[in-house]
Amino acid sequence: MINPSVTLAHVRANAPLVHNITNYVAMQTMANVLLAIGASPAMAHAREEAAELASLASALTINIGTPSIDWLGAMGEAAHAANRAGTPWVLDPVAVGATAFRRQAARRLANLRPTVIRGNASEIIALNAVIDDQNPTAGGGKGVDATDSIEHAEAAAQQLARSTGAIIAVTGPRDLVCDGEQIAMIDNGHPLMPRVTALGCALTGVIGAFLGAGAEPFEGTVSALAYYGLAGQQAAQQAQGPGSFAVQFLDALAAMDEATVDREARISHRSCKH
Amino acid sequence: MINPSVTLAHVRANAPLVHNITNYVAMQTMANVLLAIGASPAMAHAREEAAELASLASALTINIGTPSIDWLGAMGEAAHAANRAGTPWVLDPVAVGATAFRRQAARRLANLRPTVIRGNASEIIALNAVIDDQNPTAGGGKGVDATDSIEHAEAAAQQLARSTGAIIAVTGPRDLVCDGEQIAMIDNGHPLMPRVTALGCALTGVIGAFLGAGAEPFEGTVSALAYYGLAGQQAAQQAQGPGSFAVQFLDALAAMDEATVDREARISHRSCKH
Amino acid sequence: MINPSVTLAHVRANAPLVHNITNYVAMQTMANVLLAIGASPAMAHAREEAAELASLASALTINIGTPSIDWLGAMGEAAHAANRAGTPWVLDPVAVGATAFRRQAARRLANLRPTVIRGNASEIIALNAVIDDQNPTAGGGKGVDATDSIEHAEAAAQQLARSTGAIIAVTGPRDLVCDGEQIAMIDNGHPLMPRVTALGCALTGVIGAFLGAGAEPFEGTVSALAYYGLAGQQAAQQAQGPGSFAVQFLDALAAMDEATVDREARISHRSCKH
Repeated sequence: MINPSVTLAHVRANAPLVHNITNYVAMQTMANVLLAIGASPAMAHAREEAAELASLASALTINIGTPSIDWLGAMGEAAHAANRAGTPWVLDPVAVGATAFRRQAARRLANLRPTVIRGNASEIIALNAVIDDQNPTAGGGKGVDATDSIEHAEAAAQQLARSTGAIIAVTGPRDLVCDGEQIAMIDNGHPLMPRVTALGCALTGVIGAFLGAGAEPFEGTVSALAYYGLAGQQAAQQAQGPGSFAVQFLDALAAMDEATVDREARISHRSCKH
Repeated sequence: MINPSVTLAHVRANAPLVHNITNYVAMQTMANVLLAIGASPAMAHAREEAAELASLASALTINIGTPSIDWLGAMGEAAHAANRAGTPWVLDPVAVGATAFRRQAARRLANLRPTVIRGNASEIIALNAVIDDQNPTAGGGKGVDATDSIEHAEAAAQQLARSTGAIIAVTGPRDLVCDGEQIAMIDNGHPLMPRVTALGCALTGVIGAFLGAGAEPFEGTVSALAYYGLAGQQAAQQAQGPGSFAVQFLDALAAMDEATVDREARISHRSCKH
Repeated sequence: MINPSVTLAHVRANAPLVHNITNYVAMQTMANVLLAIGASPAMAHAREEAAELASLASALTINIGTPSIDWLGAMGEAAHAANRAGTPWVLDPVAVGATAFRRQAARRLANLRPTVIRGNASEIIALNAVIDDQNPTAGGGKGVDATDSIEHAEAAAQQLARSTGAIIAVTGPRDLVCDGEQIAMIDNGHPLMPRVTALGCALTGVIGAFLGAGAEPFEGTVSALAYYGLAGQQAAQQAQGPGSFAVQFLDALAAMDEATVDREARISHRSCKH
């Protein structure tokens, strides 16, 4: 039985510093989400400081949404620094299926032992194909949006968990978390969430904050997803569309009652099928 | 008679992928606007992938708001890829009159056969002067804000349409669209729109989405402008200032009734004067 | 007696162009804040145009929140151009205590005669230590968030004002402004302000706009801080959390009544202690 409030309370009490090397579109939203949940965000991407900052932080997140050669270098150094320091880090392989450049970047990063990899169904299917040396153009997604269902991603998530050693979080209408042996499904969330840019990227930061607050990776990831989805459900009750939803969502993250999150989290749990 | 709802319905039904190489200030807003209208935005600027992504997309937009040498290279390659693929693309020459660097960048891009060029009155006057080899410091605008009226930009828009082959969209309190032969004026919009950053840049994305959904360029551009301005009018009814206006605007774009947009679009139409 | 409305009225009447070389996280918020107060923001960072734009602007701001080698070069050139043109400029040494790269960057910029330096207590203490060649790892702050109080920063602010010749603004629950001889304390503001990213960075832009509108630097800085904090207080009355606070804050900046800001500004004033 996973109670998301346990880690949420740790985040709020300790304000873990989360270092994010993320895309330009998501930076502001990610910082605001992390502040709303009680964490302390820092964004920095220069090679001259990325490793130093990663080694100071409680968690690191790396997102390839707007990749460039320079930044990829800093991402690699930051990941190594996190590993050396024993700091958890989360990989977000945005639109990995879209271009050869992203496939190469994501492959290199996925092989640097991320604690968690979070993507939508199309991204996880594409990343698994890349790592597995399947047809590198397999997997899909149209740009950054998913075109595959969570259910279709289950086998890929399981295989990717085993080949990388990471917890795999597949997010969408339902969320799936797999460590290679067990699977949790999370049925919180709301259809307005993908209508606001960067909420997926910002969720990667929330997973980072939960790990940075000391949660065990599988349980911390599941907790982050349930809390996040529930905030989406609460926000939708007040929203008139994607603009007001984004505003209400930050308010809901900050106001979330800890007893409520445990009561309304919809988490199911089972072993992997194979 | 142009009915904007025709293309809006196509956007909503088909979620065209719009690839944007845009400025840092506008990225998040542009992505949220594109999601609100039902399109699928992708931001990517690296030379290693810009052309590949542009050739996958239904439309491309290029915005020089925060230019750099590296990005200008990617912009050129993406424009060429779009042209090769027969993909429509839209140029947004932000603050082209402000510096020599922007004048050179905009000149090069305007000569790569954009489908549409969108700017405020000062930007269109300045870009026309640059293309026409008039005094390159002519035209003006203070930074990114317009200091000229739409009416003053009409002759420049007509000349620029003829010299570049692009549809020219001049946006401001009134909007003007010119293809070199005919002119449409659009009288939707609200004075709060220029009080929110990046709404002009995001409009460039909406034009891209309308073209990417298959609209004929002149009609698609006029449709996008009328719909966008009408959403501004609706948002202003609920807004208390620029902060709440920005929120309501996204909601209005998403909620826009298709019959309403045709009924309340204020489009007039005539031949060019010369 | 400082009446903040005097400069606010100048900003609203003249819409000073403020050129900002700021971090990726803050750009959009900073632009929206500057538009809300009636100024005209421009963001540009390329070496090819930074100096040219800085010399056109009424004020320049430089923020090292997401530093890189390329941008630091442009920052230096822009600062020199501002100095040559007699244009006021404001330095924001974000997270200067966090990495060696930031300490070096901030030291170089602080030695280029900024008109004002604005930071939180931890940043001002760290920057003073850097300039004073104290233990360069002294001072602190966790990432970008302050861990020191305003009162602890007073001696550092005074010393830094004297060594750099700049007005020092230390912002937090209380704000402190020091020119090396006199100190003003400002007791406006609200605890939700640090829960929204980039409001500190955007305040640096507001100080720039107030100086760009012709205010004497000490008085202009104090005025900007009181006005900004008061807008925070007004916004908090309508807010349910950090999301709605950010929206209300922009509305409050735009709607602020000039008589109210003078009446409700809480400014106290005294000589330095040493």
